[in-house]
Amino acid sequence: MPEPPGGMLGPLLGADRVAARLDGRAWLDALLAVEVALTRAAAEVGLVDAADVPHVMGAVARLRDELDPAVVAVEAVAGGNPVIPVARRLRAAAGPGAGAVHPGATSQDVMDTALVLLVRSATVVIDDDIGNAADAAARLAAAHRDTPMAARTLGQQALPTTFGLVAAGWCAGLDRAVHRLVDVVGALPVQFGGAAGTLAASHPHGPALADVFADQLGLPRQDVPWHTERSRIGQLAGALGVAAGACAKPATDVVLLSATEVGEVSEAAPGGSSSMPHKRNPVAAVTARASARRAPGLVATLLAAADHEYQRAAGPWHSEWPALVDLLCATGGAGARLRTCLGGLVVHPETMARNLSLTDAGGTPHHAGDLVDRILGRRPEA
Amino acid sequence: MPEPPGGMLGPLLGADRVAARLDGRAWLDALLAVEVALTRAAAEVGLVDAADVPHVMGAVARLRDELDPAVVAVEAVAGGNPVIPVARRLRAAAGPGAGAVHPGATSQDVMDTALVLLVRSATVVIDDDIGNAADAAARLAAAHRDTPMAARTLGQQALPTTFGLVAAGWCAGLDRAVHRLVDVVGALPVQFGGAAGTLAASHPHGPALADVFADQLGLPRQDVPWHTERSRIGQLAGALGVAAGACAKPATDVVLLSATEVGEVSEAAPGGSSSMPHKRNPVAAVTARASARRAPGLVATLLAAADHEYQRAAGPWHSEWPALVDLLCATGGAGARLRTCLGGLVVHPETMARNLSLTDAGGTPHHAGDLVDRILGRRPEA
Amino acid sequence: MPEPPGGMLGPLLGADRVAARLDGRAWLDALLAVEVALTRAAAEVGLVDAADVPHVMGAVARLRDELDPAVVAVEAVAGGNPVIPVARRLRAAAGPGAGAVHPGATSQDVMDTALVLLVRSATVVIDDDIGNAADAAARLAAAHRDTPMAARTLGQQALPTTFGLVAAGWCAGLDRAVHRLVDVVGALPVQFGGAAGTLAASHPHGPALADVFADQLGLPRQDVPWHTERSRIGQLAGALGVAAGACAKPATDVVLLSATEVGEVSEAAPGGSSSMPHKRNPVAAVTARASARRAPGLVATLLAAADHEYQRAAGPWHSEWPALVDLLCATGGAGARLRTCLGGLVVHPETMARNLSLTDAGGTPHHAGDLVDRILGRRPEA
Amino acid sequence: MPEPPGGMLGPLLGADRVAARLDGRAWLDALLAVEVALTRAAAEVGLVDAADVPHVMGAVARLRDELDPAVVAVEAVAGGNPVIPVARRLRAAAGPGAGAVHPGATSQDVMDTALVLLVRSATVVIDDDIGNAADAAARLAAAHRDTPMAARTLGQQALPTTFGLVAAGWCAGLDRAVHRLVDVVGALPVQFGGAAGTLAASHPHGPALADVFADQLGLPRQDVPWHTERSRIGQLAGALGVAAGACAKPATDVVLLSATEVGEVSEAAPGGSSSMPHKRNPVAAVTARASARRAPGLVATLLAAADHEYQRAAGPWHSEWPALVDLLCATGGAGARLRTCLGGLVVHPETMARNLSLTDAGGTPHHAGDLVDRILGRRPEA
Repeated sequence: MPEPPGGMLGPLLGADRVAARLDGRAWLDALLAVEVALTRAAAEVGLVDAADVPHVMGAVARLRDELDPAVVAVEAVAGGNPVIPVARRLRAAAGPGAGAVHPGATSQDVMDTALVLLVRSATVVIDDDIGNAADAAARLAAAHRDTPMAARTLGQQALPTTFGLVAAGWCAGLDRAVHRLVDVVGALPVQFGGAAGTLAASHPHGPALADVFADQLGLPRQDVPWHTERSRIGQLAGALGVAAGACAKPATDVVLLSATEVGEVSEAAPGGSSSMPHKRNPVAAVTARASARRAPGLVATLLAAADHEYQRAAGPWHSEWPALVDLLCATGGAGARLRTCLGGLVVHPETMARNLSLTDAGGTPHHAGDLVDRILGRRPEA
Repeated sequence: MPEPPGGMLGPLLGADRVAARLDGRAWLDALLAVEVALTRAAAEVGLVDAADVPHVMGAVARLRDELDPAVVAVEAVAGGNPVIPVARRLRAAAGPGAGAVHPGATSQDVMDTALVLLVRSATVVIDDDIGNAADAAARLAAAHRDTPMAARTLGQQALPTTFGLVAAGWCAGLDRAVHRLVDVVGALPVQFGGAAGTLAASHPHGPALADVFADQLGLPRQDVPWHTERSRIGQLAGALGVAAGACAKPATDVVLLSATEVGEVSEAAPGGSSSMPHKRNPVAAVTARASARRAPGLVATLLAAADHEYQRAAGPWHSEWPALVDLLCATGGAGARLRTCLGGLVVHPETMARNLSLTDAGGTPHHAGDLVDRILGRRPEA
Repeated sequence: MPEPPGGMLGPLLGADRVAARLDGRAWLDALLAVEVALTRAAAEVGLVDAADVPHVMGAVARLRDELDPAVVAVEAVAGGNPVIPVARRLRAAAGPGAGAVHPGATSQDVMDTALVLLVRSATVVIDDDIGNAADAAARLAAAHRDTPMAARTLGQQALPTTFGLVAAGWCAGLDRAVHRLVDVVGALPVQFGGAAGTLAASHPHGPALADVFADQLGLPRQDVPWHTERSRIGQLAGALGVAAGACAKPATDVVLLSATEVGEVSEAAPGGSSSMPHKRNPVAAVTARASARRAPGLVATLLAAADHEYQRAAGPWHSEWPALVDLLCATGGAGARLRTCLGGLVVHPETMARNLSLTDAGGTPHHAGDLVDRILGRRPEA
Repeated sequence: MPEPPGGMLGPLLGADRVAARLDGRAWLDALLAVEVALTRAAAEVGLVDAADVPHVMGAVARLRDELDPAVVAVEAVAGGNPVIPVARRLRAAAGPGAGAVHPGATSQDVMDTALVLLVRSATVVIDDDIGNAADAAARLAAAHRDTPMAARTLGQQALPTTFGLVAAGWCAGLDRAVHRLVDVVGALPVQFGGAAGTLAASHPHGPALADVFADQLGLPRQDVPWHTERSRIGQLAGALGVAAGACAKPATDVVLLSATEVGEVSEAAPGGSSSMPHKRNPVAAVTARASARRAPGLVATLLAAADHEYQRAAGPWHSEWPALVDLLCATGGAGARLRTCLGGLVVHPETMARNLSLTDAGGTPHHAGDLVDRILGRRPEA
């Protein structure tokens, strides 16, 4: 029986869809895609013989069909990364084309570039989920632009606001986070430096090869190799952490607003309890919060890994892989569960009105509607 | 093709053996083991009819064979945890014995107790690996009790020490960490409180049931339910974090001592490079470091989850699951890779002597041998 | 005008009392106390001339009066720690007794031992505050052993419990945390190893000197030096993190239970608002939560610092100092604010009863009182 | 005697200059500057009587002279933030102009805006230090564009590179980090929403007032209030964490390259040791690393604080203050110490050449010089 994507808790925490894009098969496909692009680019710039390319392509096709990710995972142990066994098998399978395999590259070139491909793939899901959650928030904001409810500060009713402004605030945070994430991910370039980061093994074709390599994969060009200049990874981590936090905010509000004594919203499909039929647990919001809480510690791990020593780090680099995979799953999980939460959120304006009457919190939320309009007005899709 | 345990990077980072004990199948087995113990305990104290027990045991046996963890993982989404579908399926499968399924329990009772079982299972592997690494360090310490080498402070040669004392220091840290971890894990009790943590649904048998339940599973009794009193989880996290750190110290030293210019130790099976035949990478130490670096952020996530609100937390509780699974894999990975690293470490006393001669760092490491003896003398197995 | 202890936010976040025990003056006093103990111990074992001791004691007394911590702080920059300028000034001030200053020691011996003294001093405050908060929780538990209220799970009313059991749960967590913290802090030994950790500079008196040194300071003996075996620091960090978390739990509950719509408890001196006279903010609970949230990240920093390389770490060691100071302030702040929160907490049983009637959450919290008795019964002071 | 800025360890860890911009006096000045701008803006848009403004300005001037930050710090406890006592004292001091004090604002408006001012002030120092460190790296890169040295991967010599490319890589990371930090900080807007975030108390002048308020302070306008939409804080945290990491990379390299056995660089003013005259500790690099290691955990704390519940968070908001102050000190400390480290770094080309000869790591670092040129060429100041 296959392991559920993300394990037993993957679907529950919303991580399964992203996890499926980061599993062993996905890694293997990404590594092979990078090798394909390297070979093609090397042929184009004249570093390898173009006649060798079909041999390599054929070898890749066979390996893609036949190679078991679990085998590569075990073979990766000896050398410290999965590129080494993949390149070795590729050379063996390419026969007369072996000279065109892995041209001018070092393992980190392939690992980093494959990681960029995996991050892009995972981010498609994350953007889709968070984007949909933002759209749902925008719809709630528009529908309840003028629905009065109590603003609460430090847990206490303060003055009135509208539910529309609350939901618009959720939308604003999600939009900002997803736009930044898309920017950061879109700017991640290929990696190509060779063993010492000097493009020596591809001399004199290195700079041109690096550019064609990028073009082949549809990725930004690199300017210079960034083997140990990891600010991009840190910025990616930060953007994912902010996105998880942008999901945590509405999820936390939904948990509080759906409390028995508040009762102002409820999820479309709340979780029940066999022993307590009156229970209506905001399960999607709860698990969105749980997923989001995974993110900050993982961001810290990635930021701490900036201390890549020398020209290839002996630990910090390797620690990026699991931390980044887990962080993508955490942020993706938060987005997926929040999408479910907000997509079907049921609003109870009459309860909002009744709660408002509990305090002397009178007055009019004068500009709430205008602020909703401002937020919705700057959305491209609104 | 099955996913490698711990994914593509599992074996490389040493996490595969622990990950295999925390996969979907392991979760399902643990959940069912807890339900078995609950039913048996309830029958023993008279809360359910003993005649129902065989029906439940038969149902468990069938589910263990037939139930796909991936199905449970998906079914877990609606209610927010996998206990709900497991209990429902168990009731359905138990037929006339349904009344003896999940007696007096709430989902968290089963989840927390299953997690304790999984933690104990994973810790067996972690203790084995770190214990073996400590034994290897002890052997190195004994063999090199009086082998002079330069002590280095802030990267600079200081005065002489012996390699035996260095290795004994590794051993001391590993021993301390593993002993604390065993203590903390061994003290984790069952969880049994019922929906509100008041043992109401098992009245008047609750306290007795909780004790028999613990005995059935070979776990410590609980005194009182601890649904939202999570200091045990925090202590477990701390102990795992310390254990990972105890692995990071020798792994870091091995990376530094095996640097080309230092050359005082080398791994038994260093990773090579096809393009650079002189390379002898300390791959086991490198990946031990990488695994250990995952731990601190995960500990932070678990400590932050102490803010379980009310009588069942809406997020913090759920966030413990992935963080604890990942932390067990990280610490286990560090231990497994360090075991490989130290188990075959090759020591070069002549290089140590040559390096010592670089500075005026003369003198005698007077008490180094005595300190080695002290450390080795307090080991039970020495 | 003097800086407030802990800065502008120190008193607000409850950190001022601990911060005052960790300021420049406290550091200087601790460093000098360690030097005094070293000199006395060295004289006792015969490493230095007993006739020199009065000169050193006189020099210490003068420096304690005259030396400005801000001067030492600046002088510490050149060598990388404040021990170097303190020892240099001490030697100069001791005149003919200079030979008995800093005998056989390295800077880390003094820094680590001084840090142990500072940790013990800060922990006295932390224990006092958390202990008082636990006592307050115990009083609430006893007073409301049978006061019914709704247990809430995932934010929804579940079945009834009693406020006494809720408060007893707070007490249990605080007691467990503080007991562990006291154990860990009490076990922190002196540090004495000399430059290379081999006791070479104090040969043949090193082991005896280390023991007398410990006795002089009333600290546990060290067995062996632990310059780079930092599991004790990790365990201390974990214990402080757990203690902060134990404070976060009741603080979070108080924030939720004092929400306008719940209204089951209120703080004795809630914060008001000039513009909103109906506001009764649970300020102590809010700031206890805020302080507690500082802790997990700081624990992560300390655990990550376990990778002390070689015989004196070039960064990890130095990073422990600010992280530990901040963590003591964070945990202390959480304890101080929670003490205020729980010490005057006002309970509203009639509101608890009214809220209970909102749902069909009927039934009796059968064993709640018994569980309260169990928790209170195991307290020494109950 | 005044407390050293940043405490006993402030100068040593490089945090003193930033800490001095975040002390009690700086907080008080920032709070008063915000109140001044609020009053002026309110008068300009007609919310308050312009005749009242001079009374408020006079009151501010007196408070700035007379008010002790330590007093405000203590008075801040009751209400949960220092704005409440400052506004109260300002009203009292303004006499007939009291109506023009704190117009339409809530405490968070003032706290958030003051925090933006403090962040900008601290960032000036951080940018100066990291910018200078980057300049030093650029100078090293230009001077050693073609100085051969061994590239090292996983601690092992690989193929040759040049020291110029190593230093250019440092420069690239520092430049990227500081540019991003400047962008993020420059985009932080004022905060103005009033008690419920609806601009109700300043109706109908709220939107206009918010804009003039921003203009008064020279800060970006806000579009909409962001009381609980904290992505900006998360982005700031991420940028500071990346900047700290960009400092950790060269500091780590310097520690390793200045090791006794490597000896390829040395600091201009290395720390010595009274007992070991041959020691030349790279103290600036060591303390830069230590400061940088503080950052990731603090970033995690700030990202975790994104879950601001409702319209003013009861804990997450307050936790931002100390975490942000500490993070600014940590990143600033890393930058300050790195500036010292790189500013005087001494390079030993002959040792680089000798080390290169240890291995068969022959070959030419073909494109190293070109890559140096690329990196230096994109610097505005090069």
